[in-house]
Amino acid sequence: MNRKNTAAVLVAALLSANSFAQTTSSAPAEDFKPSALNQPGQEYPQVNSQGYARFRINAPKADSVKVSLGLGGRGGTRLTKGADGFWTGTTEGPMDEGFHYYNVTIDGGKFNDPGAQNYYGSVRWESGIEIPAHDQAFYELKAVPHGNVQQILFPSKSTNTSRRAFVYTPPGYEKDKSKKYPVLYLQHGWGEDETAWSNQGHANLIMDNLIAENKTKPFIIVMTYGMTNEVKFGKIREFKIDPFQTVLTDELIPYVDANFRTLANRDNRAMAGLSMGGMETKMITLNKPELFGYYGLLSGGLYNPEDLNGKAKPKLVFVSCGSRERPDGVKKAATDLTAAGYKAVSYVSENTGHEFQTWRRSLHELAPMLFN
Amino acid sequence: MNRKNTAAVLVAALLSANSFAQTTSSAPAEDFKPSALNQPGQEYPQVNSQGYARFRINAPKADSVKVSLGLGGRGGTRLTKGADGFWTGTTEGPMDEGFHYYNVTIDGGKFNDPGAQNYYGSVRWESGIEIPAHDQAFYELKAVPHGNVQQILFPSKSTNTSRRAFVYTPPGYEKDKSKKYPVLYLQHGWGEDETAWSNQGHANLIMDNLIAENKTKPFIIVMTYGMTNEVKFGKIREFKIDPFQTVLTDELIPYVDANFRTLANRDNRAMAGLSMGGMETKMITLNKPELFGYYGLLSGGLYNPEDLNGKAKPKLVFVSCGSRERPDGVKKAATDLTAAGYKAVSYVSENTGHEFQTWRRSLHELAPMLFN
Repeated sequence: MNRKNTAAVLVAALLSANSFAQTTSSAPAEDFKPSALNQPGQEYPQVNSQGYARFRINAPKADSVKVSLGLGGRGGTRLTKGADGFWTGTTEGPMDEGFHYYNVTIDGGKFNDPGAQNYYGSVRWESGIEIPAHDQAFYELKAVPHGNVQQILFPSKSTNTSRRAFVYTPPGYEKDKSKKYPVLYLQHGWGEDETAWSNQGHANLIMDNLIAENKTKPFIIVMTYGMTNEVKFGKIREFKIDPFQTVLTDELIPYVDANFRTLANRDNRAMAGLSMGGMETKMITLNKPELFGYYGLLSGGLYNPEDLNGKAKPKLVFVSCGSRERPDGVKKAATDLTAAGYKAVSYVSENTGHEFQTWRRSLHELAPMLFN
Repeated sequence: MNRKNTAAVLVAALLSANSFAQTTSSAPAEDFKPSALNQPGQEYPQVNSQGYARFRINAPKADSVKVSLGLGGRGGTRLTKGADGFWTGTTEGPMDEGFHYYNVTIDGGKFNDPGAQNYYGSVRWESGIEIPAHDQAFYELKAVPHGNVQQILFPSKSTNTSRRAFVYTPPGYEKDKSKKYPVLYLQHGWGEDETAWSNQGHANLIMDNLIAENKTKPFIIVMTYGMTNEVKFGKIREFKIDPFQTVLTDELIPYVDANFRTLANRDNRAMAGLSMGGMETKMITLNKPELFGYYGLLSGGLYNPEDLNGKAKPKLVFVSCGSRERPDGVKKAATDLTAAGYKAVSYVSENTGHEFQTWRRSLHELAPMLFN
């Protein structure tokens, strides 16, 4: 296993995040509507049909208000003050489709937009905005049978506490008491936690919709905190996998197998993760290949054939990223693995970067390939 | 049913909220520690052993920073700016034990404290702080078997969407597939939503701990959004119960009875609510007395004997509030009901107001009396 290279690729990917589709600077269409992620009753932030975002924040006595979104690293969007004390501003161009984290700098301090709901990323609860996507139907809330997402508190001797995980059980789980299900262990990225895949990723709705269309086997998804935030951003290569590996493989998996109706074997257990969760997935699947039959790295490193050499052969290796990341590396990894005799699939999300739209789409691609 | 009086009492209770135990103004003990509700790694806000709260917020170019907590309606705590650009301040006196919502005014705009986690109240995600309580053991996370809290999405024809509820299932629910459980429908207050009883109230931990000590029967708790926020604060008496009553009694209860192992009858179904959720509980239990056997109003109005006259008799009426609210009214209501031949119990939470510590304690008192 080449942990240093994985970390280097990952850090490069993280640093290249927030690549927005800002190619125009003509006047935006005046058809702005509230973002779907606003707090109840809040009119701002808004998004127009082209993907521009507009912000409006009350701070009558402030000297400067800036939003971190909108210029792809070139300083965000500066808002200007109106006579009514509200600061407003619009991104210079359209944003990429999907979910974006952001925050607001008020007179030099970092706060959240009071109009937006908050999502845990960057080791803080950030504001979130949703740019409607052409393919959003696959993660929309529809009138189909819904699975449940439940919070469990599982005992962890190694960390001397009860730890939290979220468990998605597919529609029908409560009814047919004899049916057992495969399990996907699905990890968030650096700066995030176990809430990310449901809140930002809509993993439950992606599954509900796939199942309703009979496009995937129903399976359980388990999401817990990957203990990634104890390492500072930029020092990811100093991360030690052992404490989390112990929690996952010695504590969480046995608890899930004892408390849910699982098919408790390698062929019915997968692990996948996004960004730093991919790095964790790679480390743990290579350390414990007897536990997992399916591996997925979503914008989170790659497997080389040498990584897998001499170990229990995975039933599937899935690697993905956004087209604004390093798609050539992802494609080459799958090609190399296939040439070496492994079943490997790559997926590239078009016109997205190191963000949740890439990972929503990746899960949507990955799920139908699992447990076949 | 006297809806107007209920609303008047409720509005009075809401307006008298935030009564803090600020009787001293001597210097606070310098043993401040981070609040238990801080975002990961955040040192501020802090609380000392006497219940003072201290805030520290970075806003180097701001002209004024004020925290809404600390002076019981007299304007909150003004922070002062240090040479490092951080604003700091300490409440003038100790705060009441338990959970408090707050926000931060930066140069005239309302934001949240970037150090604190957010909780939905006042129809916005507010900052939260926890003042350690002498009796906090009953809602602490302990090494006992834990129940799960799961998000369900249930179909609602009357509102033409899938609606969210959270369902607490007690420890062991997943294991003994033959056992059926009673159900408590538990409502939040005005400005809150279905997240409140778990996040602010720790309803799941209160139950886990009671069950571990064999002090209550295990039962299911269902928490959904009471559609209270469509009515503006101060116009609560204009609230119409019908839309929510339809969702609860025609849609949610049948869904829960179909998808969970419930004892689906009146003697095993309770409804309780805090503040405006109590007002809803009163209206719905009186409109549908055949559905619920146990009623609980937590800082949320009272039943008079005339309200219950001629209806199916409840097995228990529970009324409660904080000692800083109107405890005499609560006690008199239980006395009057008892004199009229009903089983009625009152509970007064000492040294708390219209806040979650009152409701945590109320649930802790109520649970052991249910379903006996």
